[in-house]
Amino acid sequence: MSEFGGYTARSLELLKSNDIQIGDTVKITSDMTYDGVIMPKYGSDGIIVLKLKSGYNVGIKADKISEIKLVKHAEIESHSIDVKSNAKDLPKILLLSTGGTIASKIDYRTGAVTPAVTADEINASVPELSEIAKIVPRVLFSEHSENLQPEHWKKIAKELDSAINSDYTGIILAHGTDTMQYTAAYLSFALSGFPIPVAIVGSQRSPDRPSSDAALNLTAAAKFLTLTKHNGIYVVMHHDRSDGAVACHIATRVRKNHTSKRGAFETIGAEPVFLILEDKIKDNASGEFFKKNRYNPRISLDSSVALIKYHPGYDPKILDNIVKSGCRGIIFEGTGLGHVGRTMYDSIKNAADSGVFLGMTSQCIDGQIRMTVYESGRDLLNMGIIPLKNMIPETALVKAMWALGQTDNAEQAGKIMLENIASEFSD
Amino acid sequence: MSEFGGYTARSLELLKSNDIQIGDTVKITSDMTYDGVIMPKYGSDGIIVLKLKSGYNVGIKADKISEIKLVKHAEIESHSIDVKSNAKDLPKILLLSTGGTIASKIDYRTGAVTPAVTADEINASVPELSEIAKIVPRVLFSEHSENLQPEHWKKIAKELDSAINSDYTGIILAHGTDTMQYTAAYLSFALSGFPIPVAIVGSQRSPDRPSSDAALNLTAAAKFLTLTKHNGIYVVMHHDRSDGAVACHIATRVRKNHTSKRGAFETIGAEPVFLILEDKIKDNASGEFFKKNRYNPRISLDSSVALIKYHPGYDPKILDNIVKSGCRGIIFEGTGLGHVGRTMYDSIKNAADSGVFLGMTSQCIDGQIRMTVYESGRDLLNMGIIPLKNMIPETALVKAMWALGQTDNAEQAGKIMLENIASEFSD
Repeated sequence: MSEFGGYTARSLELLKSNDIQIGDTVKITSDMTYDGVIMPKYGSDGIIVLKLKSGYNVGIKADKISEIKLVKHAEIESHSIDVKSNAKDLPKILLLSTGGTIASKIDYRTGAVTPAVTADEINASVPELSEIAKIVPRVLFSEHSENLQPEHWKKIAKELDSAINSDYTGIILAHGTDTMQYTAAYLSFALSGFPIPVAIVGSQRSPDRPSSDAALNLTAAAKFLTLTKHNGIYVVMHHDRSDGAVACHIATRVRKNHTSKRGAFETIGAEPVFLILEDKIKDNASGEFFKKNRYNPRISLDSSVALIKYHPGYDPKILDNIVKSGCRGIIFEGTGLGHVGRTMYDSIKNAADSGVFLGMTSQCIDGQIRMTVYESGRDLLNMGIIPLKNMIPETALVKAMWALGQTDNAEQAGKIMLENIASEFSD
Repeated sequence: MSEFGGYTARSLELLKSNDIQIGDTVKITSDMTYDGVIMPKYGSDGIIVLKLKSGYNVGIKADKISEIKLVKHAEIESHSIDVKSNAKDLPKILLLSTGGTIASKIDYRTGAVTPAVTADEINASVPELSEIAKIVPRVLFSEHSENLQPEHWKKIAKELDSAINSDYTGIILAHGTDTMQYTAAYLSFALSGFPIPVAIVGSQRSPDRPSSDAALNLTAAAKFLTLTKHNGIYVVMHHDRSDGAVACHIATRVRKNHTSKRGAFETIGAEPVFLILEDKIKDNASGEFFKKNRYNPRISLDSSVALIKYHPGYDPKILDNIVKSGCRGIIFEGTGLGHVGRTMYDSIKNAADSGVFLGMTSQCIDGQIRMTVYESGRDLLNMGIIPLKNMIPETALVKAMWALGQTDNAEQAGKIMLENIASEFSD
């Protein structure tokens, strides 16, 4: 980042001629008077970005500025937090980063965003964390999560597994939000019974925005990990309905239900299992929500599983070709209680005859599959499709990949699918 | 329905020996005493089903019954409602039935469920309707909606179109709930500007259950059609959050979000446009929600469109095969703001080169597609994928089928996709 943070033309001239640099506190007179800190340019040319004391950023048109007065030069500041100073008194948390919006470096003074690709940068990016725990940062990948594949999941699982003999109180997994729920579901199965609590954390708003949830989510996760008595894999993200609250979701029951809002992640069909509030953790758990599995990592998977969302006009040849290509499992997102049109029946029979595991979920997302109520459901049951209760489709897909990594046998995979391993369904 | 409603063995003997028939009012002594009306058997053998005065049904084990006393024989009753008696004073509604749970014959006296396959049976099934309007029933199909295909949609559209020169105040389309939103979206595009209000109505709970929403939804729809000043296509179903309220949804923005509950249908990202309450219709519309299109039916469609829900481990060969099979359009359900992994890029380029229309929606369901924020989105834009704003995936799929029925040209189809025809998106 140059000292003029990407500004050009009239904006650059205004800053230079007034001896103002990024991070300086200024008073700008335009249609009104603004006090704040000069931020690096983002967005359109011809706009100077100011972070107000409220924390909000405003863009002010350079050609409307009548005066810009330096109040105070930025203090030279170092982000190398000395985590060792009080490290002995604090619990230790591993901060494992895979990339995504959250793994950008946040400079709270200027709001600058740069990729945080070294461990120190991640550590420095949220200085508040070091007041809660001794953070041990480690970068595993730097990928936005739409580019994470099942092979990445296995690497994450191995990395987590290798951390169990350390003295970590908990682990934060920084992850893009796009496919967070898929990774979260896989880890729940592969590392069932994991002895340390794991919080998978992302941010919906990039750290250059005053509304970013990165720091809030990370500090809430650290707080949760140091206070909880519950092991297991959780997704920790801004809560939808309470501003300032962060929700902790069971990782097999969570879904990204909005493209952009901070409270995009929701537990399907229930409240989040914990709410992390300013002063306490609210426990919504009813009874045991994770079986006390003995920890026994089962990291293998077979990604040759397809997700078929049925709709009117669905061409059954697509299913035929999927089966021909050697796919070992199919998760249907059927309609309603678990149906597909009878136009699909021949292709489904053929898939079943080919030894493909067939499981039924609902595109309604919420609610139980019940295939005994209507004729279509009973027909499909007779063809060997397994109703997957209220498992959400994405979790069912991931679980099928994982189950088929544990056995060569479709019938055996079906049994694994119906075993409740990580609260993936309720009856 | 026999006079002993399917009862066998001990249950049948009990009823016969006490001269009791279906519909008779009785007092049964078992572990406690029950007063109610004998219903036909449903569920397990050995259970006698009684409708209590509260409206709820109970099953009483026949071998626990110590006494069954006849209180009153059922009155012989006819369901042939004389709709002509006050017909002159009432508005006329066409009740067009396609099948589904709602199009079962409901006997309110006994709760018996039988398929209502004649027009008279449908009319008789909800006698309350005849107090609101003169109902003209017509059966088009008797299919549960998972078996309705795009060819059925066209028949429905033609049937509706042929009704416009009649004196109908409104039209009720009785439809299974499984694929209701797909049919609803198609009709919104094909019959844009339709001059009569159309309420698509279903029921989530079959009429043999005391909690059935069939009669409530139908009467609310009739009330809405006779009172509204707004034409257009709506989905009218039980409201989730207010018991007794029925929601009226814009047909392109509605989704079945629960497999079984009565309030399963939700408008995505907004309140339902109208709420039909006991005593009034609450209007949540902000501004014009349907363009004042001149009515110009465009019924053609091309169903060779596929829906691809991206997930980690998605095999791009599936996409290759879809393109090879001659598919003319693909709607992606991408992750987050509209992304897929870069493992898909070669296959997407190939699809674009083959002249296939490519549109992007989000598997988050709610929220805007924004493909300029991250690298993946920009890459996909460069390959020619059209971001479909906040159109929900199912509506986008149906609209693409319809758009490709209007033009042979993928680029032209893209323009149609971005034209807001029936409130399918908001900016």
